[in-house]
Amino acid sequence: MPLPVPVLPEGVDPAWLPPDAFRALGSRRTLIRGSGPLVETVHGEVAQACARFGGRVVRDCEPGATGNDLVLELTGSDGSEAFMYERAGGRTTVTASGQSGLLYGLFHVVRLGEDAFRGERRSREEHRPAVALRMLDHWDNVAVHPVMGQVERGYAGGSLFWEDGRARGELERVRAYGRLLAACGINAVAVNNVNVHETEARLLTDRIGEVAEVADALRPYGIRTQLSVTFAAPMVLGGLATADPLDASVRAWWAEATARVYEAIDDFGGYVVKADSEGQPGPFAYGRSHADGANMLAAALAPHGGTVHWRAFVYDHRQDWRDRTTDRARAAYDHFVPLDGEFAANAVLQVKHGPLDFQVREPVSPLIGAMARTRLAVEVQATQEYTGQQRHVCWLGPMWSEVLRFRPERDGGPSVGDLAGGGLVAVSNVGDDPFWTGHPLAQANLYTFGRLAWRPDADPDGVLDEWIGLTFPSAPERLVAGVRAVLTGSWRTYEKYTAPLGVGFMVQPGHHYGPSVDGYEYSPWGTYHFADRDGVGVDRSRATGTGYAAQYAKPWAEMYESPDTCPDELLLFFHHMSYGHMLHSGKTVIQHIYDTHFEGVEDVAEAREVWASLAGLVDPARHARVAERYEEQLRSAREWRDQINSYFLRKSGVPDAHGRRIH
Amino acid sequence: MPLPVPVLPEGVDPAWLPPDAFRALGSRRTLIRGSGPLVETVHGEVAQACARFGGRVVRDCEPGATGNDLVLELTGSDGSEAFMYERAGGRTTVTASGQSGLLYGLFHVVRLGEDAFRGERRSREEHRPAVALRMLDHWDNVAVHPVMGQVERGYAGGSLFWEDGRARGELERVRAYGRLLAACGINAVAVNNVNVHETEARLLTDRIGEVAEVADALRPYGIRTQLSVTFAAPMVLGGLATADPLDASVRAWWAEATARVYEAIDDFGGYVVKADSEGQPGPFAYGRSHADGANMLAAALAPHGGTVHWRAFVYDHRQDWRDRTTDRARAAYDHFVPLDGEFAANAVLQVKHGPLDFQVREPVSPLIGAMARTRLAVEVQATQEYTGQQRHVCWLGPMWSEVLRFRPERDGGPSVGDLAGGGLVAVSNVGDDPFWTGHPLAQANLYTFGRLAWRPDADPDGVLDEWIGLTFPSAPERLVAGVRAVLTGSWRTYEKYTAPLGVGFMVQPGHHYGPSVDGYEYSPWGTYHFADRDGVGVDRSRATGTGYAAQYAKPWAEMYESPDTCPDELLLFFHHMSYGHMLHSGKTVIQHIYDTHFEGVEDVAEAREVWASLAGLVDPARHARVAERYEEQLRSAREWRDQINSYFLRKSGVPDAHGRRIH
Repeated sequence: MPLPVPVLPEGVDPAWLPPDAFRALGSRRTLIRGSGPLVETVHGEVAQACARFGGRVVRDCEPGATGNDLVLELTGSDGSEAFMYERAGGRTTVTASGQSGLLYGLFHVVRLGEDAFRGERRSREEHRPAVALRMLDHWDNVAVHPVMGQVERGYAGGSLFWEDGRARGELERVRAYGRLLAACGINAVAVNNVNVHETEARLLTDRIGEVAEVADALRPYGIRTQLSVTFAAPMVLGGLATADPLDASVRAWWAEATARVYEAIDDFGGYVVKADSEGQPGPFAYGRSHADGANMLAAALAPHGGTVHWRAFVYDHRQDWRDRTTDRARAAYDHFVPLDGEFAANAVLQVKHGPLDFQVREPVSPLIGAMARTRLAVEVQATQEYTGQQRHVCWLGPMWSEVLRFRPERDGGPSVGDLAGGGLVAVSNVGDDPFWTGHPLAQANLYTFGRLAWRPDADPDGVLDEWIGLTFPSAPERLVAGVRAVLTGSWRTYEKYTAPLGVGFMVQPGHHYGPSVDGYEYSPWGTYHFADRDGVGVDRSRATGTGYAAQYAKPWAEMYESPDTCPDELLLFFHHMSYGHMLHSGKTVIQHIYDTHFEGVEDVAEAREVWASLAGLVDPARHARVAERYEEQLRSAREWRDQINSYFLRKSGVPDAHGRRIH
Repeated sequence: MPLPVPVLPEGVDPAWLPPDAFRALGSRRTLIRGSGPLVETVHGEVAQACARFGGRVVRDCEPGATGNDLVLELTGSDGSEAFMYERAGGRTTVTASGQSGLLYGLFHVVRLGEDAFRGERRSREEHRPAVALRMLDHWDNVAVHPVMGQVERGYAGGSLFWEDGRARGELERVRAYGRLLAACGINAVAVNNVNVHETEARLLTDRIGEVAEVADALRPYGIRTQLSVTFAAPMVLGGLATADPLDASVRAWWAEATARVYEAIDDFGGYVVKADSEGQPGPFAYGRSHADGANMLAAALAPHGGTVHWRAFVYDHRQDWRDRTTDRARAAYDHFVPLDGEFAANAVLQVKHGPLDFQVREPVSPLIGAMARTRLAVEVQATQEYTGQQRHVCWLGPMWSEVLRFRPERDGGPSVGDLAGGGLVAVSNVGDDPFWTGHPLAQANLYTFGRLAWRPDADPDGVLDEWIGLTFPSAPERLVAGVRAVLTGSWRTYEKYTAPLGVGFMVQPGHHYGPSVDGYEYSPWGTYHFADRDGVGVDRSRATGTGYAAQYAKPWAEMYESPDTCPDELLLFFHHMSYGHMLHSGKTVIQHIYDTHFEGVEDVAEAREVWASLAGLVDPARHARVAERYEEQLRSAREWRDQINSYFLRKSGVPDAHGRRIH
């Protein structure tokens, strides 16, 4: 029986799967061959499209299956996610040896639209995800956290899964969510926050049934479910006196708890763990290494085929700002490189893409490329904690693409995408908002993440065009060009009006929205800029600084070591520079700060005008939501400009070369 | 029937009324003459003391009333709070023409201790409060506020009156509180926060019974109860479409609501109102003046003998930091001076002592002295919002005394204490903490306020000694000297390690604890320091600044106008000065900053040692609580020192003349 396509609740935006995106498919004749639950999902999709647009769909078991425009054929049951795509003899064929592959092939056809049914292709194309695990981490709390709320760093309303301490129970919406994820290639979801509080801890044990319901809703779209667990679970939940990973009773507790999880969810993906980080418990309390900790969980998961994702986000969050020798950027490398080779095969070290924390500009974490004998997952942040919190347009495709294409050995060797054998992970930007992501244009970030996780070397601009084509089907060129214009450069625009030249932070403490140049300067968080009357930036050179630059392989280490060769955009990340230092761009540091901040605001004003000009071409609710957020973005960008420029004028005393007003 | 003295709940500190403070009184023979409820309070006090210490007490109606050591005699019923004190013929006599006067006379005898029964005095002494209304404003919320909690700016636990949306009901403790207040001379309590939220608004109407219970508990100690009300009450509670103070239906609503209040509390004191301030509603919405607003409430209260306290804390809290022409310090004067003479006789304008907001150092508000035809109340803040939040020792007696003795016409004319005809008011620092004030030594602030309100020209050091004598009866001289030592200079010590030279703020936004030099610098709150690489401070001169200095009478205006004559401690409040400017002290501004910050920390360390040396002389629980808070004070003082010094070193580039380490 074909699985009915989930029905969106009234008023919820279809995102990149509006009915019209299925017009080409739905007006054709399709034959589906094979059987299995995901084949029924595929059948349901095609059947709904045909019902709407006049085509027809048959199964191999049915008569009259000739004269088809499209054949979707499952040829095996190997669990592969790959598919073959062929256009020949006036017919389009998708074959896959695993059910997920067939589903991805279907969405490939949807993306191509009419192009899927035009002309001939020279040869068969194989589509295969470069990365096996493409996961979203939801930082969703079950119980509303007094400070962080229902979703930690969530800017799109409540959680899709949880509400006020309980499972939300709106499983039809969860199914619709799974469908959107499948259509961009995501195949795993961790359903709760990595900061596991008291209520959330119990999802592992007596509340696993609630997780199972989510898993059931996501499974028809090829998505496995993961759970964030607390390292202290044996104590908190099991009443043991210790959580020591080498303690036999602790290991037995985890083995048994994990077996029960698999009784409830037989394709359960595994655990996500934030240990010894920002107050979370971990193996350090027992004098054990993080490999000991991860391997204990890996051992519990191994009999069931599960994986533990162990986050490498370990640093001293009670640093003394007076101590300039400690460098938070060094921490992940210093903690984990000595453990390379010690992690179990089903333990994945999950590394943030940069050494700090999802700033608008960071170098790639030197840990990636330094752990040859460890499976790594690379984590990016779709939720825009530091990049405008879904009130600002900031399409992160180009940033992620730069990260994924970065080659830790520089000219040769594998890229970050190649090295992410343990998966690509994004912190979700989705909530129960009618537009899913708060800002309607932030949907592009979610979509782009999925597609880049499938193919890390994809051209992000091409992905953006895909997203535009799906989201605004049959759009006039003016609309396509307008949407492209406001998104394409939005990350660089955001960079222009916020913290300059890779220096990072300068945000309001706590909530991280809006400027506060000294907000973290005298804090224990290890994120400083050291601006004084002469200059600004952090000396992370080997010669005179914290030595962080030396954590890279030689070609990068040498490039970053010297201000002469360090790229402008990372200069203040690696060096403390005088305001008069001449950048490669030919501008001084201080003039660069002034210029980019004036430009950034102008860019936003211009984007706002472009968006305004699209009124009438876009659904009014969506247009209004974006227009309203542009007002806030412009206000906020001006605030950033004026605070940053005033701060540096007051400190440096250097007037703007163009005589513009700085307060 | 004598009124029994309230019994303190187990574990609650007796503060300045420990049993031993009654030893002298309780071992004597006392005769009480007169009748009335407060005479029964007096009788109850004396009876309990005698029961404990072997004396005896008789009433004039009883036989055997001869050979008395003390006579407490009520001679009339004029409601006066004054009393006559006489020592003659080996007998001490207190006479009063009003019941409250007799009560205050009793506590005078308690304060004197054995001295009340020694020697002869040359003549009769008259004791009469200089200020008729001596009020505590409790910023207590009935419902816990999501940001501000149960008590706004409360640092002593929950509220004595309210808990979690309900009346707390612990009326015995409220009685004990009233007793403490009477013993220092306070005669009015406003029972809820001036920011009146939804729940609190209803105290005026259907929940007035809960206020009446508090009033009943306080009345036997001569304390009248006041209520903070919302200007929007006719709309919020009465369902009217307007709160326009000139609208007849609004006036009728207030008249009727007020009549009902007096049905419940016949000696109700009146209303406290924060209008058009920090988001509270007010008359501006209707194009009416604050005199219109206050007079409407005054009219409702007048038939019943009540008073409205109308706060002058009106300013633009959405200021643009870029706009240097707007000066929050000017606001109260600019708003209210044009209204002088327009306020009703029972309307009191309640003015904060400084023009900003209870900073450790501010000039006296120029509004005081500029409203000759308006009754003024002067408000100070016992709760240590900006002065260490009852984690730091900061005895405010000297600051308040300076304010109260300030003469707005400088050499001649009345003092602030003289001008406060409408009352002296303190924001309460009390909560349900076992020590009442969180920090046990913060009790001294509450006591000192009461005594200075009674007699604004009193020597604060004398008041401190009174407090020490009562709180630590029969203390050895080493203890007295130690407590005196840690309190006497504590305000100046706090000033040393925090914002320098009157510049103010530099606190963490929101909660206001701990340093953040730029915390309010780019905010809408109007509290800036304008530090740049050359200098710091706010130019409030008439010649080149905001003109605030010209709001003072000529002698002060001239003194403040010029950096040459402006007192050092207010220099940065009135002027933007270069770091190299030489102070009257002979130090440069920058060296003053460095020196005071190093000194301030040393002072705290020294005070901590003094306190440590008192172990064994002080009740262990009290000693431990103070010792623990000294640890935090020292940590915090170091943080202030290092952040302020680093900030100014980085900005000025001027090294410390003594080569001390600045980070």
